[in-house]
Amino acid sequence: MEAELLKRIRSLPGTELIGDDAAVIGDRIITVDMLTEGVDFILAETDPKWIGRKALAVNLSDIAAMGGEPRWIFVAVALPKHGALELAEQLLAGMKPLIDKYSLILAGGDTNTWDGGLIVSITVIGCVAEKGVFRRSGGKAGDRLLTTGKLGGSILQHQFSFEPRIDEALYLNRHYEVHAAIDISDGLTLDLHRLATESRLGAILFETKIPIADDAVTLSGQSGRSPLDHALSDGEDFELLFSVAPQEAKKLLSLQPFQTTSGVILYDIGELTATTGLQMVTADGISKPLIPQGFEH
Amino acid sequence: MEAELLKRIRSLPGTELIGDDAAVIGDRIITVDMLTEGVDFILAETDPKWIGRKALAVNLSDIAAMGGEPRWIFVAVALPKHGALELAEQLLAGMKPLIDKYSLILAGGDTNTWDGGLIVSITVIGCVAEKGVFRRSGGKAGDRLLTTGKLGGSILQHQFSFEPRIDEALYLNRHYEVHAAIDISDGLTLDLHRLATESRLGAILFETKIPIADDAVTLSGQSGRSPLDHALSDGEDFELLFSVAPQEAKKLLSLQPFQTTSGVILYDIGELTATTGLQMVTADGISKPLIPQGFEH
Repeated sequence: MEAELLKRIRSLPGTELIGDDAAVIGDRIITVDMLTEGVDFILAETDPKWIGRKALAVNLSDIAAMGGEPRWIFVAVALPKHGALELAEQLLAGMKPLIDKYSLILAGGDTNTWDGGLIVSITVIGCVAEKGVFRRSGGKAGDRLLTTGKLGGSILQHQFSFEPRIDEALYLNRHYEVHAAIDISDGLTLDLHRLATESRLGAILFETKIPIADDAVTLSGQSGRSPLDHALSDGEDFELLFSVAPQEAKKLLSLQPFQTTSGVILYDIGELTATTGLQMVTADGISKPLIPQGFEH
Repeated sequence: MEAELLKRIRSLPGTELIGDDAAVIGDRIITVDMLTEGVDFILAETDPKWIGRKALAVNLSDIAAMGGEPRWIFVAVALPKHGALELAEQLLAGMKPLIDKYSLILAGGDTNTWDGGLIVSITVIGCVAEKGVFRRSGGKAGDRLLTTGKLGGSILQHQFSFEPRIDEALYLNRHYEVHAAIDISDGLTLDLHRLATESRLGAILFETKIPIADDAVTLSGQSGRSPLDHALSDGEDFELLFSVAPQEAKKLLSLQPFQTTSGVILYDIGELTATTGLQMVTADGISKPLIPQGFEH
């Protein structure tokens, strides 16, 4: 749906759409993400604080994917009429810890009540870091692919409680040469496909190297799908997936610069290839094509 | 509703909310406006092109109220699942003439489908003009109050077809000393009350000077309310209301700088006073208190 619409938007004369997680205008990064009831959360089953937190965190994750520093936020909401004020307060209360942690400024927004469900649309404006932004398109053949955490099963809890990788992204931007980056919002293989395609490359993943979250194992017991399958295609992990030259990867993996501070472990999961398309090298060393799968908007 | 929420938001430590139509961050102006089905438009009764146009135009009007120049837009939509793509295309088609007219860049957004009604949330980023921005708070006692057009009855048509006063605002910003400005979105008296209050002043309106739109007269025939009452409190006129020193007002009213270009006529409707509160001077010269009325979010 979104892909089709974006194609049509791009075809409008006089318009320009930037194909990254956020738009870059001068030294600012701008991202807009809207969460809708029934798609991004079930209001009846979710503490509104978690919804508010998620609405902000997904935007922060987009800024992290560009290696930027979030600064100002604008919150637009459509609230169901009944209990609107209490709901709004809880949404804000859920955002508050992230506002504090990253010293964000709530600079505006728009508050509406209506006869429909809950919508939270947040605009975040950030600053481009000194060394510039990460792009999806900057990958080089031979680059190692790293993630900032384990993957899969996020629907059980992680989709609400995840920590956007702002500090890690800024550190990587300052101290390493990141070639390409994206945040895993729609599924590892789907987002890897986007990064590889925009870099005009392909990618290989190593089955035994995919870091599988505990929740992917738990969910596997209910879903009948393998934990690996969950890790490859679940989405809403909001971990960074980034590519660096092999020497940089080696340094990062041995130093693990975030382990003692935020507890974030970097995992090496594969590499970018000159041959386009995705491949998976299985446990017994066989390479097979990998179909990008995940959440299509 | 919004007022109450804004108060609570302002009370959050570590946050800052700018009490104008848009936020100013460095040399950029940012505004976010969300339109909701059933409140801002009736989808079943309205060509979606008009909805798309209105969603963009209300934001442009906010930028005009700050005397700024709109540049980039971000469009976030929640679309009812059935016919989502066609609807999205029509919304964009409705925005297109404004995108072209003001050379805007569609720089991003977020497209969602869900089981609910239509929501269009637009973020516009503009540039601060050379002489800075208009504020609501800049009014001075003795300033004349001017509007860029006739008022009232906008629900009949004008709420969708209005022209945001971008060019006029930029011209006023360049060539005149505008002390305070706001766009009339929620009703003349309510928005005047906001401008006066933020300037720590009061205001007098002259009953015989209020420019009444033809649609206010038409609507009066159906509503049983007077055309004047419609002009004072209907809202969605999206005309600029601004204050200038008497000498500037005299010059503007005699030159009427927009009459031959965009056909916009400036009307002198009253003045800012050191005494707080709103007053109305009636046709027979009697002054009486005026209760701010209009659309409260």
